[in-house]
Amino acid sequence: MNILPIYTSPSEEELKSRKEKLLKLMDNSKLDAFVIADPDNIFWLTNFANYVHERPFILILSKCGRLSFIIPKLEKMHAESRVIGQIEYLMYEEFPYVGKGSWDLLFTAEISQYANVGLEETAPQFVANLITTKTISSEMVEMARYIKSDYEIGRIVYSSNIASKGLEKLLAMAAPGVSLLSVNSKITKLMLLQMLADNPKSNPLATNVAAVVQPPSVSYDPHNFTNIMEMDMTAGGPHVSIINGTINGYGTEVERTFFLGKVPKKAIKPYEVMMEVRALCYELCVPGADMHDVDYKAKEVFKKYGYGENVAHRVGHSIGVTGHEGPFLARGFHREIQPGMLFTIEPGIYIKDIGGFRHSDTVLVTPDGNKNLTPVKDSLNDLTLSISALNFSSSSTFKKKILKNYNRYFGLNIKSE
Amino acid sequence: MNILPIYTSPSEEELKSRKEKLLKLMDNSKLDAFVIADPDNIFWLTNFANYVHERPFILILSKCGRLSFIIPKLEKMHAESRVIGQIEYLMYEEFPYVGKGSWDLLFTAEISQYANVGLEETAPQFVANLITTKTISSEMVEMARYIKSDYEIGRIVYSSNIASKGLEKLLAMAAPGVSLLSVNSKITKLMLLQMLADNPKSNPLATNVAAVVQPPSVSYDPHNFTNIMEMDMTAGGPHVSIINGTINGYGTEVERTFFLGKVPKKAIKPYEVMMEVRALCYELCVPGADMHDVDYKAKEVFKKYGYGENVAHRVGHSIGVTGHEGPFLARGFHREIQPGMLFTIEPGIYIKDIGGFRHSDTVLVTPDGNKNLTPVKDSLNDLTLSISALNFSSSSTFKKKILKNYNRYFGLNIKSE
Repeated sequence: MNILPIYTSPSEEELKSRKEKLLKLMDNSKLDAFVIADPDNIFWLTNFANYVHERPFILILSKCGRLSFIIPKLEKMHAESRVIGQIEYLMYEEFPYVGKGSWDLLFTAEISQYANVGLEETAPQFVANLITTKTISSEMVEMARYIKSDYEIGRIVYSSNIASKGLEKLLAMAAPGVSLLSVNSKITKLMLLQMLADNPKSNPLATNVAAVVQPPSVSYDPHNFTNIMEMDMTAGGPHVSIINGTINGYGTEVERTFFLGKVPKKAIKPYEVMMEVRALCYELCVPGADMHDVDYKAKEVFKKYGYGENVAHRVGHSIGVTGHEGPFLARGFHREIQPGMLFTIEPGIYIKDIGGFRHSDTVLVTPDGNKNLTPVKDSLNDLTLSISALNFSSSSTFKKKILKNYNRYFGLNIKSE
Repeated sequence: MNILPIYTSPSEEELKSRKEKLLKLMDNSKLDAFVIADPDNIFWLTNFANYVHERPFILILSKCGRLSFIIPKLEKMHAESRVIGQIEYLMYEEFPYVGKGSWDLLFTAEISQYANVGLEETAPQFVANLITTKTISSEMVEMARYIKSDYEIGRIVYSSNIASKGLEKLLAMAAPGVSLLSVNSKITKLMLLQMLADNPKSNPLATNVAAVVQPPSVSYDPHNFTNIMEMDMTAGGPHVSIINGTINGYGTEVERTFFLGKVPKKAIKPYEVMMEVRALCYELCVPGADMHDVDYKAKEVFKKYGYGENVAHRVGHSIGVTGHEGPFLARGFHREIQPGMLFTIEPGIYIKDIGGFRHSDTVLVTPDGNKNLTPVKDSLNDLTLSISALNFSSSSTFKKKILKNYNRYFGLNIKSE
């Protein structure tokens, strides 16, 4: 199983084999064509990431393997510069536009050739309503993406290497008073610069990665980033640091809970329980297991320790051409874990007035178990960062410095309060 | 008509009046409820921007004005921190999850109360398929957004002020050899910093703005940004500079075609024709006119000068809580232009081997005409930038400097080639 990083574009062969995975599923359901409007599914099948706004981009795969791609004329050269493999373009003049050559006429002319048509579960009404033959909606494309090819794994290893490096740098700059805005800005830029240095043609439209930190006062609420841009790191913890998203088209995620200088006494038990549950998830997330079980059994252990009410989310999701996709390690989601799948493993505990406890990693399921692709240090000891060893200035000085530089550079007069 | 910049959150009153616009349209179509899944529509009605991935967020507006909001439990505090106005939360445990309290059961229980249900044209199949009563799909919410309130105009004035300042700084740093990556990075950061300095609680999930430049070699292809991150500005032109997107939830767009040091002879006529057509568009984009006409008549003038084949797109789109929305100044789109609407005015000419010619602005339709909210300098004379007056170093030195700083800061060894 390939675990070397790859950052070059996919081959025609790679994209052909993705198409064939989908064709096989279509054949099982006796479909003559499948209509694809989700930008991530289009990217997976073509290597092209479209601008997502009102101009429609619709890909149709026929059962004989022909790909027709309805795009605005405006995007012809952009599409040609990115698409890999054979595609027939059906170009419309502009949107909206009524009459000969408009996108809806191109689409209905094309789709009316087929008796049984598959449609994504996410397909919008304005596309679905144009199809007059028999349709079924299905997660077929998403399912074709479940098990990754060696190439995809290589790309995700690459993204994970950058994210791990980003997180290590983030931990190295962590100190009381460091502004979360500066962390976000510096670490995000570092990762993007690394990506561009490796491959200057990296696709910004398929890149969406960021580094953020939740300080102890908000880390108990895992999706609350409302005020963090004006907040600073503080002594103690738990801080939850988060890097996730896509890097040149392929996802990754790595997160660590860390402390500055000291660990509050009340934080020790939840950290240890989180680590125990996390170890259990790694044990359970292996070929042949049921995805449901990983989440279910994790919750049982949380309950045993009295944290049943402190669980806010499932223990994992998949990663591919998005940073967040199915299948899921979630209760009620009964599917078999298979080699070549990728999951985050991220059991979490959230306690008001104490904070959040969660590490997350990008984990590859291998034939004989799994492998963590983001092996950043994870023990409480290693993640209790010594303050004295750090040479960062205090918050107000740091912020003032940033502002001063910007004011000088741009002739502004933004004031730090 | 308010044209002072606003960057504070909307009042309950403002959100109530948005809801009432939609209720009026629902009433015209005898709808009992409307289902809203589009994140931009949800933001417009609630001030809450959700994470867009697989967990469903669905807002239901009943004809009596009740808003029910189906969200994952995980997002409760995040939603509460942003939502303005009265909303009833229907929270599901997690996604995917089967059984009591799952999102689909919450949704069907809620929606089955209503006989006639409206659904967005963009509504996904997996939502539409759950509704068993009579549905119509409609652009009602998008239409309710067409005419902006004074508050929305104030927010867009604010976004436009930042974008204009960004573009002015971009023009001030333009010089042969300046790397497009550095322009993108510096100007984007400048705008975000200004936004955060004004309002540290600005919503990053509703912010997506960037500054890019197409150099002369690719500016003839208006949506081709494939290689620009490794390219530099060059002497001459046309360069097309672009700032667009949303700043803390409200859109803006400003673009200028510029030259460095000299204007190639072949570029003068297309620039002048673009300016003539642009002036015509400003004349035509006034209350009472047909949107179709602006685009149609613009194209007639392009044709008259022999540029009929060099037009790649319509002359404008609207701007609101997105940087790109309907209605459109586009052929075939017959609707009346009304005060309080906002359009880009951006007629363009694209000629292979010469380049692209396009200015774009955010333009407010006023009771007696229109007002450009991004009045950055626009004449050929003003946009032929003197090279000697600039003190920027050449490309390779500049790039090397950036890399050296990053390498030092992050302990990396990225090489400039």
